[in-house]
Amino acid sequence: MKPVEKRPGGRSARVLADVVAATLAEVTEKPYDELTAEAVAARAGVHKATLYRRWGGVDGLIAQALESSAGQEWPVPDTGAVGRDLRLLAGEVHRVFADPEAGATPRALIAAALRSERGAAALHAFFAARHRQAAVLVSRAVVRGELPDGTDPVALVRAATAPLYHCLFLTGEPLDGRDADRAAEAALVAGRAGAFVNQG
Amino acid sequence: MKPVEKRPGGRSARVLADVVAATLAEVTEKPYDELTAEAVAARAGVHKATLYRRWGGVDGLIAQALESSAGQEWPVPDTGAVGRDLRLLAGEVHRVFADPEAGATPRALIAAALRSERGAAALHAFFAARHRQAAVLVSRAVVRGELPDGTDPVALVRAATAPLYHCLFLTGEPLDGRDADRAAEAALVAGRAGAFVNQG
Repeated sequence: MKPVEKRPGGRSARVLADVVAATLAEVTEKPYDELTAEAVAARAGVHKATLYRRWGGVDGLIAQALESSAGQEWPVPDTGAVGRDLRLLAGEVHRVFADPEAGATPRALIAAALRSERGAAALHAFFAARHRQAAVLVSRAVVRGELPDGTDPVALVRAATAPLYHCLFLTGEPLDGRDADRAAEAALVAGRAGAFVNQG
Repeated sequence: MKPVEKRPGGRSARVLADVVAATLAEVTEKPYDELTAEAVAARAGVHKATLYRRWGGVDGLIAQALESSAGQEWPVPDTGAVGRDLRLLAGEVHRVFADPEAGATPRALIAAALRSERGAAALHAFFAARHRQAAVLVSRAVVRGELPDGTDPVALVRAATAPLYHCLFLTGEPLDGRDADRAAEAALVAGRAGAFVNQG
């Protein structure tokens, strides 16, 4: 009798999912310097040798967890009004990262990625994917005539979210709920005025 | 005959300056994982024991280098026009960090600070000091009537620079010279429209 496959994709996909879940749990509970591939292997119920062969060590596990996050479906706001879409987008960044409890894992994952070359490379790919996905809300607004032709979608998305990421990961300044609305509003006002129109 | 003091503050200040200079040189030349307190001590011509006693190790040295940078005089633009001041401010961030050669040390220092708890704490203090210093250009503009009363100076300074730091240290997106002008312009337009006015 074959064992029941609980996740699509068979054994390899199951190992991947278990290892990512174990990595996220470990990264949330422990300071980066205390993370070990052994603890992730034990938690995931995977052989240490399998884990080392496939991910190399802690930095590879962090990179994998980010790659798995970047690949996940992620609802880009589509309310029909770009101001509301941008507030929802910035609010989502705030919601995911700033909450003391719910945000602990995403915050720890990004902070951990900044601790190695390999993690940083995965982080760049993560943000590139997110920016590409979110850019569509700006492109739609340009088509609807809410923003000037030639508006750079990624530049506008970046303006609406960068002040939040800046506080969360570089300056350590505390965020409150109004910071997200303010970043979205500022980006919208600037966007309407053509500040993100690419000049030849 | 007493030795000539080349720097004010005597031996301790001289050791500090030599150690910071050696730390900056090492952090620029080597990947973080290859940095050692021994190499910094040798380069600075300081006893290893002295260095360990005072700074504890690599992370303490990185924190010290950032503290020394944060304490340095730094010319906040004061042209009499807030738009020009903000462009100069964002341009300075671009100039200091984005140049492939001249920016290598500042970039490496911040990336290294993100690699430890102690470095991250020093980075938070560094940005807090920079934001406090730069905030005055916004306060002056409010007094001159160029920006609405109640404009949050740090929020506006952050909007004008965060997109640049975001690219440099989190997303890895390349910057060109127009990104600085664009971030400054977007922050100015939003600031004039009252997007950074604190509401009770």
